[in-house]
Amino acid sequence: MNYTGGPRIGIIMGSSSDANVMSGAARILDDLNIPHEDQIISAHRTPTRLSEYARHAEKINLAVIIAGAGGAAHLPGMIASHTIIPVIGVPIMVYNNKNQTGGAPLLSAFGGLDSLLSITEMPSGAPVVSVGVNKAANAGTFAAMMLATTRPDIRRALEESKKARYDSVVAESRRLEETGLAGFTA
Amino acid sequence: MNYTGGPRIGIIMGSSSDANVMSGAARILDDLNIPHEDQIISAHRTPTRLSEYARHAEKINLAVIIAGAGGAAHLPGMIASHTIIPVIGVPIMVYNNKNQTGGAPLLSAFGGLDSLLSITEMPSGAPVVSVGVNKAANAGTFAAMMLATTRPDIRRALEESKKARYDSVVAESRRLEETGLAGFTA
Amino acid sequence: MNYTGGPRIGIIMGSSSDANVMSGAARILDDLNIPHEDQIISAHRTPTRLSEYARHAEKINLAVIIAGAGGAAHLPGMIASHTIIPVIGVPIMVYNNKNQTGGAPLLSAFGGLDSLLSITEMPSGAPVVSVGVNKAANAGTFAAMMLATTRPDIRRALEESKKARYDSVVAESRRLEETGLAGFTA
Amino acid sequence: MNYTGGPRIGIIMGSSSDANVMSGAARILDDLNIPHEDQIISAHRTPTRLSEYARHAEKINLAVIIAGAGGAAHLPGMIASHTIIPVIGVPIMVYNNKNQTGGAPLLSAFGGLDSLLSITEMPSGAPVVSVGVNKAANAGTFAAMMLATTRPDIRRALEESKKARYDSVVAESRRLEETGLAGFTA
Amino acid sequence: MNYTGGPRIGIIMGSSSDANVMSGAARILDDLNIPHEDQIISAHRTPTRLSEYARHAEKINLAVIIAGAGGAAHLPGMIASHTIIPVIGVPIMVYNNKNQTGGAPLLSAFGGLDSLLSITEMPSGAPVVSVGVNKAANAGTFAAMMLATTRPDIRRALEESKKARYDSVVAESRRLEETGLAGFTA
Amino acid sequence: MNYTGGPRIGIIMGSSSDANVMSGAARILDDLNIPHEDQIISAHRTPTRLSEYARHAEKINLAVIIAGAGGAAHLPGMIASHTIIPVIGVPIMVYNNKNQTGGAPLLSAFGGLDSLLSITEMPSGAPVVSVGVNKAANAGTFAAMMLATTRPDIRRALEESKKARYDSVVAESRRLEETGLAGFTA
Amino acid sequence: MNYTGGPRIGIIMGSSSDANVMSGAARILDDLNIPHEDQIISAHRTPTRLSEYARHAEKINLAVIIAGAGGAAHLPGMIASHTIIPVIGVPIMVYNNKNQTGGAPLLSAFGGLDSLLSITEMPSGAPVVSVGVNKAANAGTFAAMMLATTRPDIRRALEESKKARYDSVVAESRRLEETGLAGFTA
Amino acid sequence: MNYTGGPRIGIIMGSSSDANVMSGAARILDDLNIPHEDQIISAHRTPTRLSEYARHAEKINLAVIIAGAGGAAHLPGMIASHTIIPVIGVPIMVYNNKNQTGGAPLLSAFGGLDSLLSITEMPSGAPVVSVGVNKAANAGTFAAMMLATTRPDIRRALEESKKARYDSVVAESRRLEETGLAGFTA
Repeated sequence: MNYTGGPRIGIIMGSSSDANVMSGAARILDDLNIPHEDQIISAHRTPTRLSEYARHAEKINLAVIIAGAGGAAHLPGMIASHTIIPVIGVPIMVYNNKNQTGGAPLLSAFGGLDSLLSITEMPSGAPVVSVGVNKAANAGTFAAMMLATTRPDIRRALEESKKARYDSVVAESRRLEETGLAGFTA
Repeated sequence: MNYTGGPRIGIIMGSSSDANVMSGAARILDDLNIPHEDQIISAHRTPTRLSEYARHAEKINLAVIIAGAGGAAHLPGMIASHTIIPVIGVPIMVYNNKNQTGGAPLLSAFGGLDSLLSITEMPSGAPVVSVGVNKAANAGTFAAMMLATTRPDIRRALEESKKARYDSVVAESRRLEETGLAGFTA
Repeated sequence: MNYTGGPRIGIIMGSSSDANVMSGAARILDDLNIPHEDQIISAHRTPTRLSEYARHAEKINLAVIIAGAGGAAHLPGMIASHTIIPVIGVPIMVYNNKNQTGGAPLLSAFGGLDSLLSITEMPSGAPVVSVGVNKAANAGTFAAMMLATTRPDIRRALEESKKARYDSVVAESRRLEETGLAGFTA
Repeated sequence: MNYTGGPRIGIIMGSSSDANVMSGAARILDDLNIPHEDQIISAHRTPTRLSEYARHAEKINLAVIIAGAGGAAHLPGMIASHTIIPVIGVPIMVYNNKNQTGGAPLLSAFGGLDSLLSITEMPSGAPVVSVGVNKAANAGTFAAMMLATTRPDIRRALEESKKARYDSVVAESRRLEETGLAGFTA
Repeated sequence: MNYTGGPRIGIIMGSSSDANVMSGAARILDDLNIPHEDQIISAHRTPTRLSEYARHAEKINLAVIIAGAGGAAHLPGMIASHTIIPVIGVPIMVYNNKNQTGGAPLLSAFGGLDSLLSITEMPSGAPVVSVGVNKAANAGTFAAMMLATTRPDIRRALEESKKARYDSVVAESRRLEETGLAGFTA
Repeated sequence: MNYTGGPRIGIIMGSSSDANVMSGAARILDDLNIPHEDQIISAHRTPTRLSEYARHAEKINLAVIIAGAGGAAHLPGMIASHTIIPVIGVPIMVYNNKNQTGGAPLLSAFGGLDSLLSITEMPSGAPVVSVGVNKAANAGTFAAMMLATTRPDIRRALEESKKARYDSVVAESRRLEETGLAGFTA
Repeated sequence: MNYTGGPRIGIIMGSSSDANVMSGAARILDDLNIPHEDQIISAHRTPTRLSEYARHAEKINLAVIIAGAGGAAHLPGMIASHTIIPVIGVPIMVYNNKNQTGGAPLLSAFGGLDSLLSITEMPSGAPVVSVGVNKAANAGTFAAMMLATTRPDIRRALEESKKARYDSVVAESRRLEETGLAGFTA
Repeated sequence: MNYTGGPRIGIIMGSSSDANVMSGAARILDDLNIPHEDQIISAHRTPTRLSEYARHAEKINLAVIIAGAGGAAHLPGMIASHTIIPVIGVPIMVYNNKNQTGGAPLLSAFGGLDSLLSITEMPSGAPVVSVGVNKAANAGTFAAMMLATTRPDIRRALEESKKARYDSVVAESRRLEETGLAGFTA
């Protein structure tokens, strides 16, 4: 198989209002120079695109699909029902639903728990795995880890990034030890 | 339109293990002599049947679809995404998931709340309405009420049934008043 | 029956502070040219109006009642107890309860879950169905779908609206694909 | 006013299946020789009896109404909307809803939280107070305490009962101290 | 007994930061000309004052104690353990806990559910009843209802107030019917 | 100070029905030969014993108090309000409340979350720490760890016990590796 | 890289009591002839084995680690902190914690939600993905899907299995349609 | 043992963004002149530092470790797995996770409940105790109480502080009684 000819990772989301959160996944992949293909696929507004997208994903040989969705969050599970490409769900907690409330922006009522459970409680044989609420960056990192098992360059980049996080914590801790906790500013 | 030629109500469910709960809807309709057509449609195991079923439902002119599902419970919302026939969801709390746990039957972890939210938290324009957890009988009654707006015979039957429930409560109350609460057996 | 003589849909709510959310239902119906009759009926402050409203609703032959309520949210269930006209509940999460807290506006404590359960957990024979928290627009759309089973003009309008949502998602997706996810603004 | 002519306390409940739990209130009152009048009033199956019961309660001069209900639990709040007699709610968690599930008894899905919130989240001016889930005995004791403010005999009985509980704990503690915790059997 | 010599109702709260919410109870009683005695009693910071307050309350013959508390909310239950005067709890959800977090004000973590359960889940024989979260006004109204059973003047005032709420809803509904829901401003 | 003259640890609980769970703490201490003094102290049924117990605990110089309680679970916090001896709370989830329900044993409604929050959500200056629900053994171990900072014999015993757990896991893992996961029996 | 020389998948769990649930993953892999290596690694009882296991996993070139854990469920996240091999967590809800409660087996208090959140709420850069509570079989299937991107034989087996599930649903639906819902037995 | 040679209390936290909350513990200890040593140790970004820190803590003879962490909150439990020094956890609810969401600050999704359960639900033998969400000051006070059992000076300071809180409540209550509740400003 040829990994250099195009994106190995697809990022999809249910609505353009999810793009702000989902860009966290894109940035991780961009930093690692991993091409990705991004689209808006709504399970409820464009249901016929689900199987089209699944066929397309299999055709271009995606290794993994990252699917973000809020509320009922059916997108990750419905894509998973159409393909055996692994799907990572990102439960999204958004802050308004303008169309439904006559203008007043309102907090999401269930803190993303509704979406987390809708993504994970899949029946036997149609798994979707999930990262935490809004944790799109972690979905990007996980997808990179999946590629890294056969891509030494990605593996090295991930290991360097892990090392950098270690160093950053140590540096922050030194700064804290010098300043003292009561006077420390993050 | 011709209401006598066939079923006006479709009952679907995600798995044969949902049939015990969903039969509560069937019994209500059977008692009212309302024909219904029942099928198992799994959003995750038979995704391509979703649009087929929606086309079939529109062709035979169903007035309403009752869709029961547990866990991630994507079925009601996914059928609703394919048609403008109204969909009533029934969140199902089941008691084991044998395939996943190596034999030991386990209680559903989230008490049906996962399914209730997955059914109701639909985006604008693709509504699904829900009855309470496992309340399939109420979905059957609601569907009958929908038909009753143009079917005087169903309306009469529902009104008689309402009257019978009133009388039954009054009779139980009399029995309680006679027995006294401390010695009463339901 | 005569569908053109007056409103077929009643919208009621427990308080004037619910009007902002409930206007989401009104706008959907207004867009579809479906007349509706709107009132404030408080289950707790005007309990005697419940049966009056039910009789009125049956007299003017309403096909469906949309009832919005927050907090204890008894209105949808109590109207349903007085009639066999189908009732769609809208659980409302509001943001202050000025009278109770000495001035300081406070968030609703339970995110609308209290109202959602109070609406759906009805006993056998007295069903109320519910949309998601604050999703009044979806209640309006569902009510329109109910009418559409005998009104081809509404059916066509709903299908066009469904098509428009499909096109809008595709357009948004194209814009996302062009901009790239990291730089996209919803 | 004349306290000896009849019951000062009304116990009502939404269904005969609530009687087992509600008998906990009756037993407390029976032990204190406080007459009570018990009835089944269903907010959803006998809504017209709500105002009748409220008028009856005011006519016989009830000092307090204890209202038990499970699920949507609208009964306490709806009685309170019809009268200014104080209403104590008892949220009831029951263990099956046979009519809805086709025979299989199922646990209540929300542990009584649904009923507790439906009882307490009343709007300004129409208060209902609640004891804990299934704590009917505490509703009975609270009602007795209300009467005790003008009935010295009840006050004495409550104080004796309080003293007896104190003594019982001390005795149990002594037994525990003698047996040792590891070998103690409650 | 003599009701005119002094307050029949005690309002206590665990902290001065609860006063804003609890003033909702005071205002109701002030409007009804019912004298009340208000104090700050902290179960955790002034535990020895619990029994002192209980003795004082019995000595001045309080008919009812309204006790507001947030967080662990032990105050209502602990006062109830010292007396047989009925105690109404008010679970309080406050918005910062400055002392614990180094300055940054934070939302209460559990939406008042922690306090609601701590107030209601009392053992047999030591009941506390609760209104909804932050619903101090309802605690004031309930206390007034308790007095009203032997005070015709309070009963009349409560009935007038009930009538005024009815009229206010009807007036708001008329205004809504005239304006139309889409253009209505609460 | 003299650690050998008597118990350094007090175990208290709100009811004899808590003894089964709390014996988990006693067994840990018995195994380590750490004397403990056990009593039943009910915050709600024996409130005057709270300060007596606190004085007693200070007099016999207890190093730590382990306090178990279910439901409203005020005991740990109320003891902590009377002393500066550290208090470890054990939230207890019990399985029936016979007195309240007319005989039928019922599951605790809130899974111990009510007690966990009532124990931990203490105000500034009156801390109680908590182990997990029903984890009395862990409270016993934590208390032993507190003593171990000045008792080398207890430290050694705890370290040996830690080592034994390590060895036990390794042995179990070997047995699993030999049997294979599919055929393994715990 | 050489995929045939040994297991590409590691299954670990925190305790032998998790083996029953985790065998669901083993059986899926066994059915697909995918070798796996299974061990018990306790984050809390054998913390030093975490880094040893991570080094071992990297040395034998595991493609993915499936880690099951209940309660605090730190194992998946802690293994993930030591390696960039992707980790799939399985939140486990078990039914007793014998050591803590003095013998009486008790239900897990939080329905697995505690473990699900502990697994998913990982910080940036250290992702763990999760399947639903007790859904070990889905973790096994997901791991197989990951291998399938470079193993055509596994891909074919997964596609056949997908097809078999489709056929099984269709067959069950036919049986339901013949029997009728009211008389159907799952 | 020598208590004056250096810090007896270690404060650690998972991230510099936790410092604002954790400074609440530092300030309590600073006020009591109890030296403490503060560091940032990330269970997930610096896992190898866990055992190093544990060895260091045992070498400098820490009496107690206060460990704050948000989200998955593995730090307290993982430190506890490496040592028998008692560990007090502080569950932290923070208000944004900038790296994951593309810039927009978002509320923590689970109100700190995720962290509270991850800290307390430890297995037998590896206890961690927890204060309430964000209640770092209480962790500081509890640690001081632990030292106070062998340090009369700390005991005196804690008792004075307890007395000061008592006096402050009494003073606030007097101010409230003078002002009247309706006009009181906290």
